[in-house]
Amino acid sequence: MSESSGEFAYIDWLRRQTPADARIILGPGDDTAVVRFTPGADVLVTTDMLLDGSCFILAEAGPRRVGRKAMAVNLSDIAAMAGRPVAAVVSVGLPRDGGRALAEELYRGLREVADEFQTALAGGDTNSWDGPLTIAVTMLGEATARGPVRRSGARPGDWLLVTGPLGGSIRGKHLNFTPRVREALQLHERADLHALIDISDGLAADLAHICEESRCGAVLRAESIPLSDDARRMNDALSPLEHALGDGEDFELIAAMPPTDAHRLLTAQPIPGLTLFHIGACVEQGMWLERDGRREVLPPRGYVHGFE
Amino acid sequence: MSESSGEFAYIDWLRRQTPADARIILGPGDDTAVVRFTPGADVLVTTDMLLDGSCFILAEAGPRRVGRKAMAVNLSDIAAMAGRPVAAVVSVGLPRDGGRALAEELYRGLREVADEFQTALAGGDTNSWDGPLTIAVTMLGEATARGPVRRSGARPGDWLLVTGPLGGSIRGKHLNFTPRVREALQLHERADLHALIDISDGLAADLAHICEESRCGAVLRAESIPLSDDARRMNDALSPLEHALGDGEDFELIAAMPPTDAHRLLTAQPIPGLTLFHIGACVEQGMWLERDGRREVLPPRGYVHGFE
Repeated sequence: MSESSGEFAYIDWLRRQTPADARIILGPGDDTAVVRFTPGADVLVTTDMLLDGSCFILAEAGPRRVGRKAMAVNLSDIAAMAGRPVAAVVSVGLPRDGGRALAEELYRGLREVADEFQTALAGGDTNSWDGPLTIAVTMLGEATARGPVRRSGARPGDWLLVTGPLGGSIRGKHLNFTPRVREALQLHERADLHALIDISDGLAADLAHICEESRCGAVLRAESIPLSDDARRMNDALSPLEHALGDGEDFELIAAMPPTDAHRLLTAQPIPGLTLFHIGACVEQGMWLERDGRREVLPPRGYVHGFE
Repeated sequence: MSESSGEFAYIDWLRRQTPADARIILGPGDDTAVVRFTPGADVLVTTDMLLDGSCFILAEAGPRRVGRKAMAVNLSDIAAMAGRPVAAVVSVGLPRDGGRALAEELYRGLREVADEFQTALAGGDTNSWDGPLTIAVTMLGEATARGPVRRSGARPGDWLLVTGPLGGSIRGKHLNFTPRVREALQLHERADLHALIDISDGLAADLAHICEESRCGAVLRAESIPLSDDARRMNDALSPLEHALGDGEDFELIAAMPPTDAHRLLTAQPIPGLTLFHIGACVEQGMWLERDGRREVLPPRGYVHGFE
């Protein structure tokens, strides 16, 4: 990684903040980091970029929460493969007027969430420019011995479960959610997961990804979709159900699995702190919403802009 | 990885462009990519962000050359560890007025350079926003059986070699250089490399990184530093030597190695297409420039702003 002029003191500060980690053979301060994975494990890699004014509003959220979100959205992608996070690198474009204080607060937010999930901060690239704050985190993880869970393995007859109530995340959850890393690992141990995805675009949109990749359809039961308090409080032209179906950035997981596994999990609810909800099932084709005994087409995305 | 609204068609296009690669178990289109490394190899990871108006000027360079540079600067970091590139992920913030054509040209530039170095494009995150073009590439590589070459292993007595003439890269080379990946691998096979770095900040500044990490000093011989044609053509208040010492983004390598290895390489020049230059040696401490028989202090960085 190269460094922009004037960023060396910040990099030295970063290096002093970086604790030893057996997986990190070489951390910040060389041309690359060197990471040692569990022998035989496949490596998961994901990247997400957050942009001021688009993915967050820096003046409202503050840099620490932006840092937290930048780390958490990437962890959520590792969770969506039922993988274990290992290390992250962070590229930042800092507005010139933000200075060192902004950089440090951003880093603190990144670090808090990384620490919570045993993720090493292995390196990065820090730049200043005349544009707004931009931050790109790339997260490396590893698959467990059971392998990664893709979007593509769902089959007609599978039950669809979600890991929490949905909708209205714009009221705050999108900046302050807990990525479902631990829950995904536990689900993977306890069930034959056919497909898994995190809800970043919205329940209907992300379910459509599963359907497309798995070449199947899905039917959701309206009365079974868990509505968050935020969805109920949105107080706009859309119903709480519409928010739960269409709103993005809930970062809960949608899992497809055989009915026997699903039934056992729903009855036992064996994962600490987690309530699983049974929202529907996979079918041969189409995306459907069932309510009051009738089945209507569920638009795969942009649901809030086209529904009823 | 999550996708911004309206980017799905682009992602489909990307997936159709992505060839099969045995190392990529799962490419673009799921929550993460899945990459398989050589068993036992340590994983190298580096990230570099390029920002319009700061690292390039989009209107002058054009998106294809920006894409090429974004990939090449990361490959140069893998070269600086004498590693093999494996896969890259790309996060992009596109200006809204640039549209699909900008995204595709950027991708073509990325792809051209990635293909040249057998690097898979494994995934990414594509966003639109109101800001200027920003692109962050994260590159994964693997160390060879000889291990990665750090900045920290140079010892007093080592000779210092560079892989090409220096200075004036702003005249064009910074957008159109060939990262020294192949040359670094060959050097690593043929010599006991004690330290290696790519010149991104400038010869003096990057040599200072080696000295700092290796806890040693260095002396350069002014008449031995290879001056590029661009350094000679800069036609400003600085001499070609000052450009060679202070200009950034040459992306040549500085290598420290035992004199016997260096001497053999300099005599045989065994690497096709590469001329190695002997520019100086490591000493106990300090950074020095020797010319006309006298030794003067070599400022470790910002050389062009403080020299003579």
